[in-house]
Amino acid sequence: MDAPKGTTTSAEYSDLELRLAARNHGMPLEVLQHDVTPIGMHYLLIHYDIPYVDESEWTLTVDGAVGRRLTLTLDDLRARPAVTQRVTMECAGNGRTLMRPRAISQPWIYEAVGTAEWTGTPLAPLIAEAGLDDDAVEVVFTGLDTGVESGKRQSYARSLTRDEVARDDVIVAYEINGQPLPPQHGYPARLIVPGWYGMASVKWLTSITAVTTPFEGHQQARAYRLRQAREEPGTPLTRIAVRCLMVPPGVPEFPTRHRFVPRAGWSLTGRAWSGAAPVVRVEVTDAGGATWQEARVDDPPAPHAWQRWSCDWRPRGAGEVELWCRATDADGNTQPLEPAWNLGGYAGNAVQRVPVTVED
Amino acid sequence: MDAPKGTTTSAEYSDLELRLAARNHGMPLEVLQHDVTPIGMHYLLIHYDIPYVDESEWTLTVDGAVGRRLTLTLDDLRARPAVTQRVTMECAGNGRTLMRPRAISQPWIYEAVGTAEWTGTPLAPLIAEAGLDDDAVEVVFTGLDTGVESGKRQSYARSLTRDEVARDDVIVAYEINGQPLPPQHGYPARLIVPGWYGMASVKWLTSITAVTTPFEGHQQARAYRLRQAREEPGTPLTRIAVRCLMVPPGVPEFPTRHRFVPRAGWSLTGRAWSGAAPVVRVEVTDAGGATWQEARVDDPPAPHAWQRWSCDWRPRGAGEVELWCRATDADGNTQPLEPAWNLGGYAGNAVQRVPVTVED
Repeated sequence: MDAPKGTTTSAEYSDLELRLAARNHGMPLEVLQHDVTPIGMHYLLIHYDIPYVDESEWTLTVDGAVGRRLTLTLDDLRARPAVTQRVTMECAGNGRTLMRPRAISQPWIYEAVGTAEWTGTPLAPLIAEAGLDDDAVEVVFTGLDTGVESGKRQSYARSLTRDEVARDDVIVAYEINGQPLPPQHGYPARLIVPGWYGMASVKWLTSITAVTTPFEGHQQARAYRLRQAREEPGTPLTRIAVRCLMVPPGVPEFPTRHRFVPRAGWSLTGRAWSGAAPVVRVEVTDAGGATWQEARVDDPPAPHAWQRWSCDWRPRGAGEVELWCRATDADGNTQPLEPAWNLGGYAGNAVQRVPVTVED
Repeated sequence: MDAPKGTTTSAEYSDLELRLAARNHGMPLEVLQHDVTPIGMHYLLIHYDIPYVDESEWTLTVDGAVGRRLTLTLDDLRARPAVTQRVTMECAGNGRTLMRPRAISQPWIYEAVGTAEWTGTPLAPLIAEAGLDDDAVEVVFTGLDTGVESGKRQSYARSLTRDEVARDDVIVAYEINGQPLPPQHGYPARLIVPGWYGMASVKWLTSITAVTTPFEGHQQARAYRLRQAREEPGTPLTRIAVRCLMVPPGVPEFPTRHRFVPRAGWSLTGRAWSGAAPVVRVEVTDAGGATWQEARVDDPPAPHAWQRWSCDWRPRGAGEVELWCRATDADGNTQPLEPAWNLGGYAGNAVQRVPVTVED
């Protein structure tokens, strides 16, 4: 069977995929040891170029189907009520390379995730101040980042429904981990939609526009949808699927990244999260899923922040083994052993598999 | 002809190369607009895992063939005289994917570079305080990062000669851009060797050891050497070869990263640097090198910091064109049109080539 257009069955990666991997940053998995991901280690997926923004010329407008148009400077945003939230964010394309055939796009393995403390002002009061018209159905968030996609020049834009913009945890953020946003995270301000894949958290935010018909922009109507065939409208991606990851145990080999673990065992640890509900169970196996060992799972430090998990692992003997970990959330969602295939390579939350050599 | 062991003639990239690209970070080239690279955008090449360091348990020792062994805490380092230096750092493997056959390692294209303001204490007085024995020939710098390489478990370590440690611009740094080092840049302290490729600037520095015979560690005697065949001892890499890069003009396409430029032209800009001497000339061509246009080059802001360059480019017509840029330093070193092949894929400073579509 031929791979559908836009996908490949090659076991190797093309120049196009390398060019993306060379500029989009993953979080090295040993950084899962940190409760909050240090600046510079959080994942980054940037469709176009990182805009070079002069703060003195930047404004955020709230317009469209609203009673009162607003224009805010960064100082205006900072003068509004501020909240700080710890949020785990994940790219919708995380795990893409584990699907067969795979979508030709940013070739994430497992590392497109991070957790930050975002500070900003709640979105809902800002929208309330502008006043949505009765016939407004969605609100469109547009960034300063511009490029060509599907043959058309465009700025990155995504919409949220009236209900979603009324959530009390959606914020317009201007700080990460207590510092002004660095350019790559959306300076000077961006949206943060906790619990959703990263595509909703529009960076370099410049306008918030209420619209009276559903938004049909590329990133809403074409990209970021689960579909089996190109002609389907597909299902939009929203909340992050349940997942856990482990800090790869032992020591790595360069350049293979293969791991070596002592015969005495290793204290496994990692993080688990779900956009739907808290994670209630993490299990590990070194037996291909024939038996699973239950890990301790910490309570969530915040509603949409990852949870630490840990367990002591004692190998059954020296040699090659594969460690897997699997999370389940309070809604009963469990990670699959194999990813659910889709054309765009999205939401691939299959269990992580870490091959290791147990030393004699 | 078969590709030598450790290299490949494949036009595609293996799983091994992708695993490295997924964790080592490049600097997106539009970030060349910044005089100083924001934290999180500087390139990162990390052989093993990023250590998780508890500052209260960390010390730096100066020992070996010295008159007086020193043990310093981070507070001790901070109490010493401090200097801040702007330094452009580049990975010795930058440009690796442009060589044929290419070394199988971190698959850099052009983006393994960054410029930071490093703050720390000069190394030479620290060494003087310990007092090198007369028979000490080199000083070995060892990091906390540990892994397996060439079948042997080791910590990352590099040496410098007596002359090199006496340089007044080599520092033990504990801040980047005015902030404590983040984990990925060597927290809590690292070496900075201005003008040299990044492999010399040992991260997570834990010991400085004077030795009476030349250091034969893997990163010194095997890796980071220019050689044509595996059995050669090779020439050690030291200073950064001359290079310039441009901010890719126009707007990018996703996912190809191809550029579209208006017919009216574009103001080209970028940075240029050399570990040997200041850059005195940057030229650009859209004619495959048949004619070159000279760019303005700013003076160096610091002895080892990149220099801004710019020139207005007016396309000769609509269609496909390739822009190249080429730097020359005050010692007469000029970038080659094709990289000088070597087994490890090091020091590949061939001119950057950016294909663009000039719009009608």
